[in-house]
Amino acid sequence: MDKKISSAVIKRLPRYYRFLGELIDSDISRISSKELSKKMNVTASQIRQDLNNFGCFGQQGYGYNVISLFEEIQKILGLNNRYNLIIVGAGNLGQALLNYNNFQKRGYNFIGVFDVNPEIIGNTIKGIEVFDMSNLKQFVQDNVVHIAAITVPRISVPEVSKQILDTGITAIWNFSNSELILPSNIIVENVHLTDSLMTLTYNFNCNDESK
Amino acid sequence: MDKKISSAVIKRLPRYYRFLGELIDSDISRISSKELSKKMNVTASQIRQDLNNFGCFGQQGYGYNVISLFEEIQKILGLNNRYNLIIVGAGNLGQALLNYNNFQKRGYNFIGVFDVNPEIIGNTIKGIEVFDMSNLKQFVQDNVVHIAAITVPRISVPEVSKQILDTGITAIWNFSNSELILPSNIIVENVHLTDSLMTLTYNFNCNDESK
Repeated sequence: MDKKISSAVIKRLPRYYRFLGELIDSDISRISSKELSKKMNVTASQIRQDLNNFGCFGQQGYGYNVISLFEEIQKILGLNNRYNLIIVGAGNLGQALLNYNNFQKRGYNFIGVFDVNPEIIGNTIKGIEVFDMSNLKQFVQDNVVHIAAITVPRISVPEVSKQILDTGITAIWNFSNSELILPSNIIVENVHLTDSLMTLTYNFNCNDESK
Repeated sequence: MDKKISSAVIKRLPRYYRFLGELIDSDISRISSKELSKKMNVTASQIRQDLNNFGCFGQQGYGYNVISLFEEIQKILGLNNRYNLIIVGAGNLGQALLNYNNFQKRGYNFIGVFDVNPEIIGNTIKGIEVFDMSNLKQFVQDNVVHIAAITVPRISVPEVSKQILDTGITAIWNFSNSELILPSNIIVENVHLTDSLMTLTYNFNCNDESK
């Protein structure tokens, strides 16, 4: 796999994958970069450039083969494999992630949930028992765990991320409203919901002023 | 307000805001762009450039006044105002948003939740009644609603976004796993959780291969 692909391109791949999946659902087997461009609201040249990173998919005047492009991106994204995830923090957000069926369909299995609250430890969410945080290390020794999602309050983040790193897990999906300070070999993907809402508000205000 | 600020800068503002808030919590009143840079893992020149968009905050060799910078960004992001939100889709994700206290603290009030499922209509989540979707238009007429969050399954998105636009709401926070096709005067902020997880997986695989 080419390591020099920019992170901006990587960020766009899931979106291509989603759109191509929708085309397949609509029984569309060929699409020109122009049509795909219109649908995705990205320039046709951007699409060509992005996809050229991964080999030669389009033919001049003939368009892309939707299924082979879909399968190639699937492979690039590593979606042919399955991934085991644990969730640290069994509050509302953790529960929402567990209950969201789309992850499972894409090959992501939640296999463990951890919390410190004695009132929810031992409960079952979608068939998965909530374990005490003190069992985390043993659980990761006994099971293959690829990714840990952090859905705890900000105040618990330093302690929780220390405990996760201590298990040897190297990929973190961070939902906490803070930035993690981690060694460089740890992969982090942040979902900062409050940041997203603030960006929306800013654009809303600008939009409102321009009327 | 200067309208020419790039969307990349806008995206970074909530992060500055978050970091400055943490500095205030730690009673730090001055910080150099170098220190802030180290903390945020952004180059000092990027920080200077970003903040220069909004006027002159730093003094050579003296650093930024944390509180005035924080307050200025707060003003730019429009966080001095309060915003009323509704949630369309009272499933797990909708409930998680309602239960997340951080939004309220930042000035975002959830004032209504809507669903089509008769089993949950009439229920109360965090003191807010779940209304039937058929009441949406009337609700927006009777209340000030700035933003609608969409947390419905992909299949319901076209119908739901039509109904939301029909109320006159112009800002949408989209959690559905699909792209919305909307008129250009509508502001959308997407949170695509599956995309985020795919990006994490991609980086995880690359990291793994490079070992």
